[in-house]
Amino acid sequence: MTTQFTEDQVGERIEQMRRRPQRFRDDHITMAHGAGGKASRALVEGLVVPPLANPALEQLSDAGALTVNGTRLAMTTDAYVVRPLRFPGGSIGDLAVNGTVNDLAVSGARPVSLSVALILEEGLAADVLRAEVQAMADAATRAGVPVVTGDTKVVERGKCDQLYVVTTGIGAVHEAADLSPQRVRPGDKVLVSGTIGDHGIAILLARGDLDLEADVRSDTQPLWDLAEALLGACGAGLHCMRDATRGGVATVLNEIALAAEVGIVLEESRVPVRPEVAGAGEILGIDPLYVANEGKLVAFVAPDLADAALETMRSLPSGADAAIVAEVHEDPPGRVLGRTSFGGHRLIDMLVGDPLPRIC
Amino acid sequence: MTTQFTEDQVGERIEQMRRRPQRFRDDHITMAHGAGGKASRALVEGLVVPPLANPALEQLSDAGALTVNGTRLAMTTDAYVVRPLRFPGGSIGDLAVNGTVNDLAVSGARPVSLSVALILEEGLAADVLRAEVQAMADAATRAGVPVVTGDTKVVERGKCDQLYVVTTGIGAVHEAADLSPQRVRPGDKVLVSGTIGDHGIAILLARGDLDLEADVRSDTQPLWDLAEALLGACGAGLHCMRDATRGGVATVLNEIALAAEVGIVLEESRVPVRPEVAGAGEILGIDPLYVANEGKLVAFVAPDLADAALETMRSLPSGADAAIVAEVHEDPPGRVLGRTSFGGHRLIDMLVGDPLPRIC
Repeated sequence: MTTQFTEDQVGERIEQMRRRPQRFRDDHITMAHGAGGKASRALVEGLVVPPLANPALEQLSDAGALTVNGTRLAMTTDAYVVRPLRFPGGSIGDLAVNGTVNDLAVSGARPVSLSVALILEEGLAADVLRAEVQAMADAATRAGVPVVTGDTKVVERGKCDQLYVVTTGIGAVHEAADLSPQRVRPGDKVLVSGTIGDHGIAILLARGDLDLEADVRSDTQPLWDLAEALLGACGAGLHCMRDATRGGVATVLNEIALAAEVGIVLEESRVPVRPEVAGAGEILGIDPLYVANEGKLVAFVAPDLADAALETMRSLPSGADAAIVAEVHEDPPGRVLGRTSFGGHRLIDMLVGDPLPRIC
Repeated sequence: MTTQFTEDQVGERIEQMRRRPQRFRDDHITMAHGAGGKASRALVEGLVVPPLANPALEQLSDAGALTVNGTRLAMTTDAYVVRPLRFPGGSIGDLAVNGTVNDLAVSGARPVSLSVALILEEGLAADVLRAEVQAMADAATRAGVPVVTGDTKVVERGKCDQLYVVTTGIGAVHEAADLSPQRVRPGDKVLVSGTIGDHGIAILLARGDLDLEADVRSDTQPLWDLAEALLGACGAGLHCMRDATRGGVATVLNEIALAAEVGIVLEESRVPVRPEVAGAGEILGIDPLYVANEGKLVAFVAPDLADAALETMRSLPSGADAAIVAEVHEDPPGRVLGRTSFGGHRLIDMLVGDPLPRIC
């Protein structure tokens, strides 16, 4: 998943990814187009966005921004197609609420309402649906946000996989929030709010098609309390937040490095990873840096506020294992470098291909 | 689809539908649960809504209401699973934008932003997706509303039917809007904005599994211009609006009759129906009153404003065939009666069963 490139190759890659618009060259959709890596990016930027183009959408951030009667709002939507529906630590119902709440949270927006659309497969057991609606209700209560509207459709057997959920959220942007990748600058510290890779590894293990058992639970949880506390502690010194879902922390860092035209140096030994997750990842040949999280955010903070941000995170249960893991540099622009425990550097590239389909 | 009941049976039905909460008694989801009739109602009211309960959701209107910093907003979401993807008069991309725009419009809300979530089947031709994204873009431009955020997921072959779309909309509630079923009162006139049944019949014919050909096109179109003009013309005299999608005009009238505890008498001969739609319906044994529309609204208006409302509708292309079709009475509460061209009455019941799955 990580490869060494020559300087020329790296330069070419940045050129390709940043300055030229992505083109979608495939004739058909493949599973890789849904995995959150390069192929997903080509699909979204090369096919979906251009016809719909407008400034809010082109930001390609976790939520769109709009202003109604002077009120700053954020809007975000996510389709959940996770397989299996239930897994250690959560279920599609939890994900569907928390994932959307977290896209608002990292946009600096307090979640104020959710909608839920259900696509049900004919023959779905009513109790399976009941359990997921209850999971959504519990997660919504925990996150303090009401589900104000919904829709339910049924499709024939074999035209869905039990149950897909699409949740959309509206958030009211916090007055102190001034968040965007463009505000990230050299010197900024990068924090992650806890252990990484838990969700993706939990899903892989829950599928049961690997000859591997480990006690790994999804980290699905709402993050608005954490985001709000960071906004309170850092104000405009909080430059950008992202939740590290599909594609993991490595993808978030690459996206920000490209958008802000900065280099990011990651101290790999500082990245919190549970031993079970690291172990499973090693056996499976998967780097936890690329694995989806469903309750972790990455924050870019002005250097003088990094310690306050860390303390704030650690004071909350959802940020108990937070760590400062990276620093922003001028060079090399658009690249993420990992400093290994042996003192060397490696290029941490965008995710290529599709190791983990239908992870959320 | 319509049946004669005794007074006792009718009374029992009202009791059952209005005062007692619906129960969901089935063990499994069937296609009927997605058709917009009684089974859909039982699923939504008996299974989905109770755990999520809050005042906005319990309204079960076309959109949820929320207020952020004093600004009245409406939020609505719809999943689109129509088969086939393209049909005379439109495609899933048009529907996905217009349907959501119209749910806002009949809530008295100017559409201000949309989100789009795509669930794609592995192997989907890129050109099919390209065409639908373009259709969404064109429909959004026509409706004057930007798509500000989105999500794309891919599922394995056989876990979707090419492409499902979920669009969610935010609207800013018009200052003159005071719309709810509870405002409907005896004496109100009921208008439909044009010919009914076009969309559903167009879809049925487009599937090609009926030995029947007719030149019927979907009526998919945005209705905010019409809704806004009605609000301007009638102000608070416009009591309620609904778009007559799944379940058709008959279902809308039944829902309002039950919610407002009024009787509605429909002059069946006044209902605008294209001859091709009436003819196809007759051959198929389907009453156009129960057939989905995707560009028609039903408006309940104070009697002294009915003519102004009609004139307003007819002045716009989207309301050119509008008609006053029914009147609200005190009795029989919770029921819709059709006055036939022979002078008799029939009970126009809620839709039972599933004549038209995946119509939108």
